[in-house]
Amino acid sequence: MPDFPALTPHDDLRAFIARCFRSCGMTETNAEQAAGLMARADLIGQDGHGVFRLPQYIRRIQAGGLDVNAQFRTVEERAATALIDGGNGLGHLVMNHATQLAMEKARTTGVAWVGARHSNHAGPASLYAAMPAEEDMIGIYVAVGSANHMPPWGGTEMLLSTNPISIALPSTNNPPIILDMATTVAAYGKVKTAAQRGETMPEGWMIDKNGQPLTDPNRASEGFLLPIGGPKGYGLSLIFGILAGTLNGAAFGREVVDFNADSETTTNTGHFVIALDIKAFADPAQFKSDIDKIWQEMKSSPRLPGFDSIRLPGERLAQVTQERSEHGIPLPATLLAVLNTLAQDLGVAPL
Amino acid sequence: MPDFPALTPHDDLRAFIARCFRSCGMTETNAEQAAGLMARADLIGQDGHGVFRLPQYIRRIQAGGLDVNAQFRTVEERAATALIDGGNGLGHLVMNHATQLAMEKARTTGVAWVGARHSNHAGPASLYAAMPAEEDMIGIYVAVGSANHMPPWGGTEMLLSTNPISIALPSTNNPPIILDMATTVAAYGKVKTAAQRGETMPEGWMIDKNGQPLTDPNRASEGFLLPIGGPKGYGLSLIFGILAGTLNGAAFGREVVDFNADSETTTNTGHFVIALDIKAFADPAQFKSDIDKIWQEMKSSPRLPGFDSIRLPGERLAQVTQERSEHGIPLPATLLAVLNTLAQDLGVAPL
Repeated sequence: MPDFPALTPHDDLRAFIARCFRSCGMTETNAEQAAGLMARADLIGQDGHGVFRLPQYIRRIQAGGLDVNAQFRTVEERAATALIDGGNGLGHLVMNHATQLAMEKARTTGVAWVGARHSNHAGPASLYAAMPAEEDMIGIYVAVGSANHMPPWGGTEMLLSTNPISIALPSTNNPPIILDMATTVAAYGKVKTAAQRGETMPEGWMIDKNGQPLTDPNRASEGFLLPIGGPKGYGLSLIFGILAGTLNGAAFGREVVDFNADSETTTNTGHFVIALDIKAFADPAQFKSDIDKIWQEMKSSPRLPGFDSIRLPGERLAQVTQERSEHGIPLPATLLAVLNTLAQDLGVAPL
Repeated sequence: MPDFPALTPHDDLRAFIARCFRSCGMTETNAEQAAGLMARADLIGQDGHGVFRLPQYIRRIQAGGLDVNAQFRTVEERAATALIDGGNGLGHLVMNHATQLAMEKARTTGVAWVGARHSNHAGPASLYAAMPAEEDMIGIYVAVGSANHMPPWGGTEMLLSTNPISIALPSTNNPPIILDMATTVAAYGKVKTAAQRGETMPEGWMIDKNGQPLTDPNRASEGFLLPIGGPKGYGLSLIFGILAGTLNGAAFGREVVDFNADSETTTNTGHFVIALDIKAFADPAQFKSDIDKIWQEMKSSPRLPGFDSIRLPGERLAQVTQERSEHGIPLPATLLAVLNTLAQDLGVAPL
């Protein structure tokens, strides 16, 4: 039977996630905030980082591997920096707190860099980069990925993760430019999707332990992801991992816990966010109008054969967000069934 | 006749560059500083960004396209940010000033972001990222490249440059980890080198206007460089270009002047540097010892067939620096001849 998606209104999805979290003892305020960010991941088209992850988060909460009402503590603080200990809380709550703090500081100092440790998976990177962009700031977010899928360049031991970066820049008449990328050619979620669909992966996504192309996604556990640009992507993953992990006293390298396989061990996930106040460099109205001009310049430039349009990072995100705001979020029937079984287990109303 | 390299002591090279600049009216202090940074580019193995560029810089100075004794002006300033107008000075001098200012600010605020406009080519990116790393800080440097060689993804108009990023992290017993990468698969200098050597380029470096692989480096002007990771590298180049260019009121997109082809027009080159004080997050001794552990963890991990060792970014740079400090900098005979002709024209002692 085909996996027909059900179109779920965004508000319904948010309310569902909130009642699941509340049933696990999360406060009303935390549950609303966490649900808002998770449902937003689905709204913007980041299907692998939204409600899809809820059963896994709940499993971790029930196994004692995540504190639903963790208290955050500022471990170090300067005028333009802070290090937050997330107390093993949900990454969304930790990084929302960190991002708000970075924005508050940047309003005075011009820029702020806030790191976090003892956090957890926080959903798609763009959530946190986009927050400053809504207030005439530029946002940058980097995380240590929640499982290692990549060796150093030339190696076979998976010491590195996809360590993503997101950067968001506001405009006036166009969507914000939002880059949200893994440092690997393919994110691990794309490998899982290929396996589910019975598809072959293109060469260049993964290699096996002998360095040969691995194209059968069912053999993914025998190989590893490849970095973008070979040693360059390895360098980016390594350094982003150190900045988001090691510098904050968070896990990196062999310390990283595979949160897909293990729901009990504290992950000590690290992230950082930078907020840069546009006003400290330029008139925000002028800057945003410059970004509009860049949209125009790129999109109107001549194209290669076979390309219908030139896209800017964030364009597809904006289109999907509008579609799903109007028509609802497509949840595959299998996912819907999993979520409603979860609801039953938690004793809350289904979707 | 083969192009045997002459081994030139680093100090001799620095003194030579300084006297060339002095002969063009540059002050003693500026000439020493600029020569120190340019000779350092050769010392660390960045041959395409060191003394090799001197004739081009001098041509620009003589054509009135660069002010040897430009006054720098702080256009905007906050506790943790500044925007510097470089007055069309040499990029090395502008960015040395910007980096020192960023470090000074970061000592108090924890982090600082200093942008520059009306600057020029500043040599290799790692020069400026490495400065904070010598003082228990982390350095990040990004520039708008000085000529466009890449279209947006799917396009054919070269609106983007290689826009490099460098990030440097200090350690105790190992060299600093220093990433210094273009956002293209190959830097344009590598294309020129392939042409000089009569070599073919591998597929993946460049494509032509029909989207077909371009492997003959003599046809480079008919095609363009490819970004790392396809649309990901395009996104990085676009966003780094906006942050280093547009945000600072510097050139981006169609405004970028090809400084190889045009020595007269003001380039309005933009860059930015971030200094992050390690002490604002961790004990620097502990952090640097953590970086040593990461060196050890990566280098001792098992290898793919065909790899003799696993390298860290900055490892080769440190090896070359040591070799060249001991034995001198290899300058090809053709380059030496060009430099000594330049010396004759300027009326200064040759190398």
